[in-house]
Formats: sequence, structure tokens, C-alpha cells
Amino acid sequence: MSKIKMGMVGGGAGAMIGGIHRMAARLDGEVDLVCGAFSSTPEKAKASAAKLGVAPERAYGSYQEMMAAEAALPAAERMDFVSIVTPNHMHAPVALAALAAGFHVLSDKPATRTVAEAQTIAAKVAETGLLYGLTHNYSAYPLISTARDKIADGALGTIRKICVDYLQGWLSEPAAPDNKQAAWRADPTLAGPAGAMGDIGSHAAQLAEAVTGHRLRRVSGHLSTIVDGRVLDDDAVVLFETDQQAKGILNVSQIATGEENGLSIRVYGTKGGLEWHQQDPNTLTLKWLDNSRTILRTGNDHAGVIAQSQSRVPSGHPEAFLEAFGNLYRNFAAKIRAVQAGEAAPATAIVPDIHDAVHGMAVIEAVVASSQHDHAWTEVKA
Amino acid sequence: MSKIKMGMVGGGAGAMIGGIHRMAARLDGEVDLVCGAFSSTPEKAKASAAKLGVAPERAYGSYQEMMAAEAALPAAERMDFVSIVTPNHMHAPVALAALAAGFHVLSDKPATRTVAEAQTIAAKVAETGLLYGLTHNYSAYPLISTARDKIADGALGTIRKICVDYLQGWLSEPAAPDNKQAAWRADPTLAGPAGAMGDIGSHAAQLAEAVTGHRLRRVSGHLSTIVDGRVLDDDAVVLFETDQQAKGILNVSQIATGEENGLSIRVYGTKGGLEWHQQDPNTLTLKWLDNSRTILRTGNDHAGVIAQSQSRVPSGHPEAFLEAFGNLYRNFAAKIRAVQAGEAAPATAIVPDIHDAVHGMAVIEAVVASSQHDHAWTEVKA
Amino acid sequence: MSKIKMGMVGGGAGAMIGGIHRMAARLDGEVDLVCGAFSSTPEKAKASAAKLGVAPERAYGSYQEMMAAEAALPAAERMDFVSIVTPNHMHAPVALAALAAGFHVLSDKPATRTVAEAQTIAAKVAETGLLYGLTHNYSAYPLISTARDKIADGALGTIRKICVDYLQGWLSEPAAPDNKQAAWRADPTLAGPAGAMGDIGSHAAQLAEAVTGHRLRRVSGHLSTIVDGRVLDDDAVVLFETDQQAKGILNVSQIATGEENGLSIRVYGTKGGLEWHQQDPNTLTLKWLDNSRTILRTGNDHAGVIAQSQSRVPSGHPEAFLEAFGNLYRNFAAKIRAVQAGEAAPATAIVPDIHDAVHGMAVIEAVVASSQHDHAWTEVKA
Amino acid sequence: MSKIKMGMVGGGAGAMIGGIHRMAARLDGEVDLVCGAFSSTPEKAKASAAKLGVAPERAYGSYQEMMAAEAALPAAERMDFVSIVTPNHMHAPVALAALAAGFHVLSDKPATRTVAEAQTIAAKVAETGLLYGLTHNYSAYPLISTARDKIADGALGTIRKICVDYLQGWLSEPAAPDNKQAAWRADPTLAGPAGAMGDIGSHAAQLAEAVTGHRLRRVSGHLSTIVDGRVLDDDAVVLFETDQQAKGILNVSQIATGEENGLSIRVYGTKGGLEWHQQDPNTLTLKWLDNSRTILRTGNDHAGVIAQSQSRVPSGHPEAFLEAFGNLYRNFAAKIRAVQAGEAAPATAIVPDIHDAVHGMAVIEAVVASSQHDHAWTEVKA
Repeated sequence: MSKIKMGMVGGGAGAMIGGIHRMAARLDGEVDLVCGAFSSTPEKAKASAAKLGVAPERAYGSYQEMMAAEAALPAAERMDFVSIVTPNHMHAPVALAALAAGFHVLSDKPATRTVAEAQTIAAKVAETGLLYGLTHNYSAYPLISTARDKIADGALGTIRKICVDYLQGWLSEPAAPDNKQAAWRADPTLAGPAGAMGDIGSHAAQLAEAVTGHRLRRVSGHLSTIVDGRVLDDDAVVLFETDQQAKGILNVSQIATGEENGLSIRVYGTKGGLEWHQQDPNTLTLKWLDNSRTILRTGNDHAGVIAQSQSRVPSGHPEAFLEAFGNLYRNFAAKIRAVQAGEAAPATAIVPDIHDAVHGMAVIEAVVASSQHDHAWTEVKA
Repeated sequence: MSKIKMGMVGGGAGAMIGGIHRMAARLDGEVDLVCGAFSSTPEKAKASAAKLGVAPERAYGSYQEMMAAEAALPAAERMDFVSIVTPNHMHAPVALAALAAGFHVLSDKPATRTVAEAQTIAAKVAETGLLYGLTHNYSAYPLISTARDKIADGALGTIRKICVDYLQGWLSEPAAPDNKQAAWRADPTLAGPAGAMGDIGSHAAQLAEAVTGHRLRRVSGHLSTIVDGRVLDDDAVVLFETDQQAKGILNVSQIATGEENGLSIRVYGTKGGLEWHQQDPNTLTLKWLDNSRTILRTGNDHAGVIAQSQSRVPSGHPEAFLEAFGNLYRNFAAKIRAVQAGEAAPATAIVPDIHDAVHGMAVIEAVVASSQHDHAWTEVKA
Repeated sequence: MSKIKMGMVGGGAGAMIGGIHRMAARLDGEVDLVCGAFSSTPEKAKASAAKLGVAPERAYGSYQEMMAAEAALPAAERMDFVSIVTPNHMHAPVALAALAAGFHVLSDKPATRTVAEAQTIAAKVAETGLLYGLTHNYSAYPLISTARDKIADGALGTIRKICVDYLQGWLSEPAAPDNKQAAWRADPTLAGPAGAMGDIGSHAAQLAEAVTGHRLRRVSGHLSTIVDGRVLDDDAVVLFETDQQAKGILNVSQIATGEENGLSIRVYGTKGGLEWHQQDPNTLTLKWLDNSRTILRTGNDHAGVIAQSQSRVPSGHPEAFLEAFGNLYRNFAAKIRAVQAGEAAPATAIVPDIHDAVHGMAVIEAVVASSQHDHAWTEVKA
Repeated sequence: MSKIKMGMVGGGAGAMIGGIHRMAARLDGEVDLVCGAFSSTPEKAKASAAKLGVAPERAYGSYQEMMAAEAALPAAERMDFVSIVTPNHMHAPVALAALAAGFHVLSDKPATRTVAEAQTIAAKVAETGLLYGLTHNYSAYPLISTARDKIADGALGTIRKICVDYLQGWLSEPAAPDNKQAAWRADPTLAGPAGAMGDIGSHAAQLAEAVTGHRLRRVSGHLSTIVDGRVLDDDAVVLFETDQQAKGILNVSQIATGEENGLSIRVYGTKGGLEWHQQDPNTLTLKWLDNSRTILRTGNDHAGVIAQSQSRVPSGHPEAFLEAFGNLYRNFAAKIRAVQAGEAAPATAIVPDIHDAVHGMAVIEAVVASSQHDHAWTEVKA
């Protein structure tokens, strides 16, 4: 099986998320990093390429150069898709350039800074027929498929209440001046109009939807900037209603001191509930009307066919963050192979798509708008 | 040490909460149940008295009769205080009658149906100088004292975010017609204008305050009635701000299928956070800026002097709901002894008082008003 | 319902276990402490009696005096049973005297210091037809009944492996000279020939049997004295085989630094397993061949009829150590009432009896003997 | 940085552990699989190679062929080390052949079937000066370094008791005839004289030593074959004493129904204890004399320098089994680079070596011998 060839934009030396994408891409040996525009300066980009085993002639000084040069290569050599791991403001231009040049796109989240930007990508995707994927890695944990299956099968009855917490503490104090991760996330021109809401609230909303199959349709947002000197929100509480009449809460914070990456979801229906914690991702708890509970675990047949397809080792050998992230790369590679073979992608090759991307931006925009209007209920427009 | 003599109003055969109060009162052997008006009919009251070991001549047909008869007894014989365990609508009339007749009052929560009712009790307490206690039993767990101490000592820095969940599932389905616990709680004339918010949301708000020492000053309430046919709310989400500029959420539900009595609190300050779960009440987790955590446990010196005073057995021998409830009775008995001796009550004799009671009703009223006005921010007036 | 009248031997001021027995006895209001020989000196005994609300004329200077005086009282006044809460060496003489005087006996564990002593009690019980109960409080938690039911019903298949841990750290360091709890437990003439094994290993063995319905029949014991200067074992590892061919381990220590009262049991059968932890007593985990798990919780119908009979409050309101201990008193009172009424005791009135007591001593003796013979396999002789 | 080149013996289509090694090797992009003798037949080996992206000319029909052919390649092309992922009986011949041909060796555990076999490898390692590593992956979790550091620093005082559980349930029932993993493990000629003890007991013993820095010096072993028809042990209980006078237990089973891969360790010293569970590998609990606890977590500075070097993502993004396994590959690659550069390997490049391998086999042999002699205490001879 030949490998799918990846080009990367962003992710140069010192970047956190680029390294994660690369480990995820490498894990299954199905994706090869063949080129990149890793940094904003050609010198840095070359240096990164050398470290990453990318040939110097394919270490490009800009994404525009990369698209042009790769498109000019023979089909058997040129990259198959572009992985975008830049700060948010570059997501749209890079994605548009890649699509225009004929390359599939796998982008870090949030998709863009605005709905309008995301819609330009959607239009290009529709026009080109190319694949677009968004790396909402948390919904790629195996047991999220199990949870989705249980709800789809009606095991929990009609869903009535959805609670997602996403609590981090790493911005409890003003970030150090040299913290690049914190710096661009705090700058509206780079990150977009939402801080914590855009960075992790977007994951929280997407997880609620991925688990339940509902869509957020109405939100009441309360964005707060707790730490002095910050421009964007570092705490966000969002009440929502879904297109299937469930109510819910997103409780999102980056000033929850002592929390690492505390994403969790609880869902309650007429027949049962469920609970899952990202920091203990191989356990899914189902809760029943009689107050007994069922514990399901990654890597077992009881988790269901899709969950099993997203799992690599025997149960009890914990699978975690990088494996879930790797599922997105493996699934996206499977979708590309299907396109290349003119076949339908397998049902297990789940990756959030451009519709999810546009909708996700619409959720963020609605929350920001609601918060600016005294948390008035605000429709999600896409 | 002679026992403190208790009369009880409510709590006849089949009542859930009355039995709990009696077990709590008996645990330490400091309180004696000497009389009662246990039921709405004299016959049932007599039958209950017999079962409870109360002398027939002190099993009264009504609370009015009880107050009059007991007041007429010699001081050494008559009850010292009245425990009120009726549905909410009777709390105020019984408390007023007891105070008027010269008896201290220990009342189940919420204090009354309205702020106005609570204020009449407050006026009577001020006039008589008698003791009034409110059985917010959850803040009587030993480690809640530890949590309060840690925050008061500044260990967590300035408190910025407070999250209280109180999730139950027992009303996920329409209650059976013969479920007396559910019936009166669903009737606004008996329970007051709030359902889940009054029944358990009141505990949630009080716990937030007991742990942090803050007072809720502004609320935005979203009360929902999820199950068809119900009049009062069975789900309540409340955003709040405190008098010390912290923000918070109460997430309260009685339709969270599969949750038993899921009360928990998480608090985040500038230096640290804490977490406590009522269903695992002997563990308090402190969370630090460096992401390490400290676990404190009931019954150890490290829990602090007050927590140790509220604990009865060596650590690792779990103490739970009835023991915490018993702390309120033991503490209230200590306060009565202090009054009788003309001394100051010990610092460990902590029982929520009439000011807490009035404030608690003001929180409920503000939440109801906010919810009726599209969750507008609403001041808590007491 | 008139109360069952209790006399107590031991448990004077400062005693830990006596206070626990009294709280347990008081909890349900079915037992009245009417007399006692609380201390080794008459003065101390009188002082304790006053604090405990026992009439001075029934505060006896010795257990012999108590038996004689109480037996001389009219039947309606005299005590119904004797609760023995002395150090181990007094268990047998007091029990024998009580039985000889016509009183039922509820004794703290271990039953005696030796099998021979226990057998003299057994003979007296057989002769008198009186009740004898042993306060193995850990098997009185509600979910232990659930566990027993599940195994008896065959849900786990044939039981093959049983692991009980009982790890404490309170003797990690040499005990303070004024620690009375530690002092008598360390003295073979008072405690018997086993230290940790007798004190808590006896609970561990009994829990294994109470859950599975098996009896230990063969043991290989390794008793260690870790802390310098101690005479008896403070650490005990016991391998065992049961009368139903299961194998198992008791891992018992009082030098497991940082463990409070870490008693837990895991059982594995051909169809499933189970796990229960005393410090989280309201949760029982069942484990299945397909690696899914079922969580059962105290206070729910799913826990079974007997478990429900041993529970006092709605599920999610945790019940703990004192409630489990109280079950023994309530159950023993029910047995006495049945005897007094000439009826069979209810099936729910479970209290370990004299056969359990003799067998328990035989387990301890076999472990000690095995340990003295290089951990040779040794039969349990009763 | 050029990649370290790996050849693999074993791990053809359908092999479980081979795939795990390859994912581990790929994760960091520092190791390239360049050749292999993947299967016992040349046809299967070629087919596996094609799937794995190995050039057909370097898919060898036997390990002997591989050693010869690779040794004949130019230094810049030939493999740097051999990864051995065969059943146990092939470990020694392959390792010896690789070393003889001048290649470093990284071998799956247990090292061999016997001490004697391991010693022949040790002699060859001594003779050649080549590197030998053993993939005890569980001690490669980041927090195991933290645990080791804490003990080495004296934070827990003198270590007195060590408890390791390794409980699995996958062999609770007779294995299906087509279960290749189960089949060779059950055959003494392939697996060696120990079943569960060799397969997972070897990990348990090694973990005890890796955490404490002690060596097992004396064992008392009880091997049981619970499931009918099996030849080797499927349950093993081992008591041990270490060279530093600590006592301990290994509780090992593959018939613990409902357990997935339940490896855990608890250590108790004079000043504190610690606990770690492989299924929750990012949490390390320290336990103190005052019964408070400290929780440390993967990915934080508080975990220590070495632990941080074995971690790839920010804390709260869980790292698990494959990442720990990947640490061994990354560390072994670092050692090879150091050898190639003529430098000392970095202190963080921790991989169990040939001395550990020989000692590990000696532990297994001593346990088997003890079990055959009525669990007599038996010295570990290496």
C-alpha cells in the first residue's frame, strides 16, 4: 500500500500543534510528510525541513510557493493533501490556495476566524469536489463512536440535557511574553473574535454535536475576560438549545486553575444518560433509570464496530490523545484513497467536514454576538 | 450531661425526611425526641408517636396544640426546640408559633416559600432572641469546613469561578401518583414558586456560599419544565455573580437520568482550585497552578480543627450523609446548651441561621424572577 | 415498639470502639443503653455512665457485678443483651458470664484470643440457647449482601480466585506511648497471638467468606513484624484455599504508610468478577467476560431485597461505616425480638454467629501456626 | 537528523506485538523499518513486507538470511539494529545471530526461555560491545521515572512493602483454537516453563524493580493452572524479598475475569507510599504519614526532568501505551546515535539492558523452582 503524501503549512520549530499533527500522521505508517512551508521565513522553514526529514528542495518559503511547485510535479510525486497547522488567520487563505491548486485539505480548528471565511472555503470545496477535513480530534476517540451509536440506537431515549465542560488552567495567570501558543491565541487579528470560546469552546460544541447527532441552533453566551490585560475571553459559559429540542450548557474556561485539559460530556435522555472524560478516554459510562451503570471500554467488541475500527491495541492497553488524533489522519487517508480509487469511502472513515466547519464558525459567531447583547438568545445561522 | 429535648412537627409514618432528622438527632445521644405533631390527623399522629417511643400524652394533634401544651409544662420537662420537617408551606407558620411560644427552631430547607415569609420569621427571631437553624446538611460535611478554611486562609488566592452541579434523575419520568415526596414538591401552593430550584437548587446555592464565604448578589436564571404535566421547574441553570466579584454556575436538574444525588462543587482562584463531591464526601481535592493536586480526607488532623470536630470515627472509616446531618443536630444542641448556660456557643457549632434563611429565599426569588424575564440579570435583594 | 435494652462491658471514657458501638446502637432508636461496666475501676465506670446517660445505680464496677445485679432485676427492667467492647482477652470471660446469667451476647471481634476460648463460648451458647453475635461490621454494608446474592445466584459462575486487601498505615511508626488503641493490640496477653492478623486480618478473612459463601480450609501464612520493638505481626500475607476449591490471598498490613482503612475485595469466577472497596462502600462493580462492567449502588432496588433492608436513605445519600455497624445492632435487636416473640428471625437479620466466631479463630490460629512453620500449608481446624 | 534503520524478525501479518512495535518505532520519526524476516515462510514474509512498505529485496525468508545480507550492505544502507518480536523460543537464536553479525538488538520480553539462554546473549553482548535492549514497556511510562526519582530521593523513606498486581481475564476461558497469541504462550517449548508468570509476571517483577531500584533476591512462588487442559500456569502468586530487605507480593493472573490489563503497583516506605495503575498511567499518587496525598500527572514540570523527556504533549492530553512503548524505541535510537557518535548516551535514554534480561529470567526460574518445591523460599541466582 503506497503512502498518502502530505504537505504541511505551519508547524515549524517550536510549534506545539504541528508536532502533534506529525506524530498523528506517522503513527500508522500510511501518511508521508513530503513537503512543507513550515515557517514564516524561508531560513526557518529550511531548518525545520531538515529536522523533519523533508528534502530541502521541497521545503518551501511560502505556502503560495508550495502550491505552485507541488502542482507542477508529476502526479506520482506531488503531495496528495495539505495539512494546515498555522494560527487561525492563515487557515482560510491556505485552504483556498490548496484547493485552488487541486489539493485536499486537512485543517486544524477552528476552521477560520469568521463564518464568511469558512463559507469561501465551502464554496471552493463545492466547486472543486476536493476533500476538506477539520481536526476535531476529541470526537475521534473510539468511545465517542460508541456514545454516538448508543444515542442513535435510542438506548438513552430522547435526549433532553447536554452538559459539556472544557476547563483548563494554563491561562490562569498572564502568559509569559515568550509563550507563542498563548500569544497568537490572545490576538483577535490572528485568532478571531473569540478566545477560549474559539480555541476550546469550539471543541466543546463540536463534541456535543458529535455525540448526540444534534446541532446547536440557539445560544446564550457569556464571555468573560478574567485576567487583566487580556483582550479576548478566557472564560465562556454558553447555554444552548439544539435542533432536536435538547437544552445544554458549555462551561469553558482557561482560568480554571489546576485543570489540565478537562474536557468532559454528560448527556441525559428519557431512558438513560452517559458520561465521558477526555482525561480518562477509554471509559464510557452509561447511566440507567434504575441507577445502575454500565461501563464500556475501548478496544472491546462491546464498544461497537466503528469504535473498534478506531482502536489499535488490545483493551486495557490505554489509547489516548495521539491515537485519537491519528484516527483523523488515518481516516482522512482512507478518504483520499477512496477518491483516488473512485470508490466510496468506508463508513468508518469519519472526519468532520466543511459543513461542520461552517457550522462551527456560526456557533462561535452566535456566542460572541449573544455575549455582546447581554446574553440574548441568538440563532446559529449555519 | 442531660439531653436536649426536641419536639417535631411533621415527619409522621412514611415521611422520608422526618426519619432522617430523627436518625441524625439520635446519633450522638445528645437530643431526645419528647413530643411531636407528626401528622395532619390526630390518629396518625398518635400512631407515629407510639412507634417513635413518644409518650401518648405528648403526641399532639396539631402544632398549635403542641406549642400551647409544651409551654405549659414545667421548664425541666418541656421541649427545648422544635424541629420542623413539614412540606415548605408549613415552615413559616410553625416556626412563628414555636418562636412565639418560646421555643428555639430548627427547620428543614428551604426556609419558607417566599422572602416575605422568611422575613416574618427573621423579625420574630430578632424580637425573641431565640435560636433559629436551617438544616442545610450538605455544608455540614466535615470537609466543607476544610474547604472553607483553605479559601479563608487564602490558599486558593482570589476566587474567580464557582461551579456547583446538583443533578438527580428521580423525576426523569412523571412521578407515580402515590409518591408523596414528589407530589408536594410539584405543587406551588405547598412548595413555593420553584421546583428543582427550591428543593435542591437552594442547597447548591448555599453550598457555593458556605465553601467560599461569598454571597450571590446577581443571578440569571433559566428554569425549565422538561417532563410534561409538571407545573414547576425540574431543571434549573443559574449564572451568578457574587459580592466578591466571582462568577459562577448552578447546574441543577431532577431529570438527569441515572444520577442519584450528584451534588458537587468546583472552585477556582488565582492560586488554586478545589473540588468536592457529595457522593464521595470524605475526599477533598485541592488543585495547584503547577497541576499537582493534594487530596485531603475526613478524620485527619490535616483537615483542620473544625472539620475534626465534625467527625466521629478514625479516618478511612467513611462518614456520610447521616453523620453530616447529625452534625447540625449536635451543633444546634451545643448552641442551645450555650444559651442555657449563658455562654457563647463554641466556634465549631456551625448551623445556618435566619440571615442565611432569608438570603436563601431571596436567591430563589431572584432566579424565578430572572427566568420569567428572559433570564435577565436580577439582583438578590437580601 | 419497646426498645431492646443493652448493657455494655468496656467502652469507658476515651475508648474508641465503645463509642462506635453506642452510636451504632442509637442510630435506629431500637436499642437503649441501660447499664454498663465501662471501665476497670468503679470510679471511672461511674463517670462514664454519667456522661452516657446511664443511671448511676446501673453503672457497675465489674462485669461480674453487672451480671448478678441485672439478673436480679425484674424481667421488664433488666438488660436484654450484653455488648462486649473490651480488649480481646476479656471477650471470653465476659461472654461466658453473660450467657451464664441468661443474657444474649454481642461481641466485638475477634471473638477471643484462641480457638479453645471460642469453643467454650460455643458450648455455652449451645447449652443456653441464647444468641451470640460477632460484630464483623464490614460485611454489614448493604452491598456486601448484593455481592453475596450475585455469587449465590451464579452470576459470576464458579468462583476461582479471591483477593482481599486490608491495608492501614497507622502503625507505620512506633505508636506513641499513650496510644491505648495501639498498646493493647500490641500485647499478646491482651490481644492474642496475632497482631495485624487478629485485628484486621480477621475482618479480611471473614469478608472473603461473607461475600463468597466459601470457608477458608487451608492457609499459608507469612506474618512479619516490620517495626522494631513490636512483638506481634504488623504485616500479614496469607494464601488460602477454600472448601469450594477457590484460591485466594489476604494482603494485610498496618504499616502501609498513607493507607487509612483500605479494605477491599476482588472475586473472580468463570463468568464474571466483582470488586468492592470499604472506603467507597456504596459502589459495587461487577466485571464481565466481555470486559464491560456493571455498577450497582446502595439504596436502589437493583441492589436486592436484603441490601435494601440494610439501607436507610435514598440512593446517592451515602451510607457508611456507622450505618453498617448500626445494621448489626438493628439485626441483633430483630433477632432478640424474634426470640422474645417465639418467632423465627427475619431473613434480613444477618449477624455473624458463634460458628463464624469459632471458625474465625481457627483461621487466625492456622495462619500463626503456618507462619511459625515456614509458611507450610496448614488446615483450618474448625 | 538521519533515521536509525531497523530490521525486524517476526511480526508478520496477524501478529499483535509486531504491529505494536512498529507503531512505537514510527511515532517519533526517528526509526525507519528497512528490512525484515517477518514470517516463517518466505511467501508470507514478502507479503508482509509489501504491506509494511519494506522493499521486496529486503524482505528476507529467514533471520539467518537477513543477518548475512544486511551485513553485506554498505554501512550507510544496512540496518542499525534488529527488533525481535517472535515467540520466546526464537529470542535467543535471533539475538545471538544479530550480535554476531554486528547488529544491536532490541528484544521483546521475556528475554529468553531460560537463564542459560540469556547468559549466552550476555556473553555475546560482552564480547561484541553491542547494545542490547529489552522492551519492558510498562516501566517506560513517564510517571514511572517520577516514582523512581521520588524513591531514590528518599521521599518515601526506607521501602518496606511492595505490591504489584497484574490481572488479566483474557484466558478465563479456554482460548479459541485459532488464537495465535494464546497458542504459543501455552506451549512450553515456545514460551518457556512459565505461562502467566513468564508473559506478564515478568513485567510485574521488572516494574517492582524499576520503581524501587531494588532487586528481587528470594521468592516463594505459587503457580496454578486453573483452566482445564492448559499446561502452563495461568495464575501466579509470588512472595518476595529484595536485596534491600523489602518484602513484596506479585499477584498475577490471566483468569481474572473482567480485568483487561490490570497492572498496578503500590509501594510503602517509612515516610510515605505510592500507587500507580497502568490503565490510568498519567496519574501517580503519593501517600503521606498524615494521610494526605499528592497527585502528580504526566507532562508537568513537577514530574521531573526524566519524566518530561519521556512525554510528548501538554499535560492533560493523555499519553498511553503506544507512547510508552515509543519511548523505548526513541531511547534505544538515542543510545545507538551515541554509540555511532562515540559519545555517552543521554541519562534520559533508559532501556532495560542485558543484565536486567538475565536477572529477569532468573526471577522466573526461581519462581518455577519454588512452586515445584511446595513454594519453598528460593534464591534468585542472577
